[in-house]
Amino acid sequence: MIVEIISTGNELLMGEVTNTNSTWLARILTDLGFEVRRITIVGDDLLEIASSIKEALVRGASVIILTGGLGPTPDDLTARALSLALNRRLELNEEALSMVARECGKRGVELNQWRRKMAYMPKGSRPLPNPLGMAPAIMIETDGRFLFALPGVPKEAYAIFKGSVLPILRKLSAKIGLKVRKSRYLIAGIREADIAPLLLELRKQVPELYVKTRVTARGIELLIQWRSSKVTSDVEYMVKDLLEKLKQKGVLIKELYQ
Amino acid sequence: MIVEIISTGNELLMGEVTNTNSTWLARILTDLGFEVRRITIVGDDLLEIASSIKEALVRGASVIILTGGLGPTPDDLTARALSLALNRRLELNEEALSMVARECGKRGVELNQWRRKMAYMPKGSRPLPNPLGMAPAIMIETDGRFLFALPGVPKEAYAIFKGSVLPILRKLSAKIGLKVRKSRYLIAGIREADIAPLLLELRKQVPELYVKTRVTARGIELLIQWRSSKVTSDVEYMVKDLLEKLKQKGVLIKELYQ
Repeated sequence: MIVEIISTGNELLMGEVTNTNSTWLARILTDLGFEVRRITIVGDDLLEIASSIKEALVRGASVIILTGGLGPTPDDLTARALSLALNRRLELNEEALSMVARECGKRGVELNQWRRKMAYMPKGSRPLPNPLGMAPAIMIETDGRFLFALPGVPKEAYAIFKGSVLPILRKLSAKIGLKVRKSRYLIAGIREADIAPLLLELRKQVPELYVKTRVTARGIELLIQWRSSKVTSDVEYMVKDLLEKLKQKGVLIKELYQ
Repeated sequence: MIVEIISTGNELLMGEVTNTNSTWLARILTDLGFEVRRITIVGDDLLEIASSIKEALVRGASVIILTGGLGPTPDDLTARALSLALNRRLELNEEALSMVARECGKRGVELNQWRRKMAYMPKGSRPLPNPLGMAPAIMIETDGRFLFALPGVPKEAYAIFKGSVLPILRKLSAKIGLKVRKSRYLIAGIREADIAPLLLELRKQVPELYVKTRVTARGIELLIQWRSSKVTSDVEYMVKDLLEKLKQKGVLIKELYQ
């Protein structure tokens, strides 16, 4: 099941901020068995955001997660971009409005037009409560596909994701029976270029297996992962076999746990 | 002048690694006066990388900077993807081969087929020396557009960027006469939603001005930036006027220097 992440915000395109939201999103989604196929950053531009959503739909993404652009300022354009991309009318969502009004009350601020703006969502949206901020997140289900728009502020995005999005994705993952296994090893005594033929061989035998080496500060890391509707004992055997072959070549292997 | 950054690597899509290369790239490019319009992350997949390059060209990017996928392993596919996207033959680049051979000599490792692979580049490529690693970077100039492919390892990418790419981009920026001014302020005593109408007004008057507020750990940051062939005194005046208006509303403003 293919997922795309779209992060919006000129500050990301100007290098003012690093896109850390997409990192934890991608990690959790991968661990749930989803395949994150693409991550896109676009600016606070209505047409750029709308076209990036449309492109992700055309590429076949079943889940699209957006971050950023839900706030009160005029350059917060995600709700409008979703409307445009999905051809759904932008309307005042009563449930969202009461969420925003409640937050205004808590903070003792006026529910002015800018704050009301955060309650405008595409027709048929489900607002998701924001436990740490004012702007509710947006969920839209359309033709069996799920679109989620989260705020850009990382702690708000994470709180909403954990509280409202993750339970939905967990159910989706369980329904499809996605399974994922990930093992990570630190290896020493072999160069990246010398391990390449072995990995190529393994990948030819088991195409669903993702095997990758990466040079890190602590040495070469070997990541082995597979995602499928069933994790067969065949695959387990292949992995054991690879590790055995490496050991026979004098390679030191240490399993890493996170 | 529009720039797009394309970062490749399954580890980015799996959330194993945060895409920090695109942050410093975007920041330096923005400061040079370029407009980073989009940042895309795709996996180690030939067609995905090739199509992301083609899409960036179609969208009108004058400069495309890729990171990742230049190494010796079979999933390092950037050179092949560039060939495919630009419809240029992949060939052994003699200059690149001597760079790789020199590095093999230094390290006392064999120049095997996997390491030779790093010298295969699209016809007409200019290899850029890698002072910290084995894989040369790739530069291709085509129809007045510039494509650069840098390694994924951040310190290597940065060393090559600084040594070989930055001088070219500086000349390009100077030739076109791009100018950029950036001021950053910390403001207090106003809420984001209350500053919005003022910023909207300013943006209507001076569309080339980029003004944005962002809630950070230390308070609300106000970023004012413009990029144009000339920085007029009009714009300077408008900014002063905005700051004056804010002060009159009792807002505390502190200029931030980095």
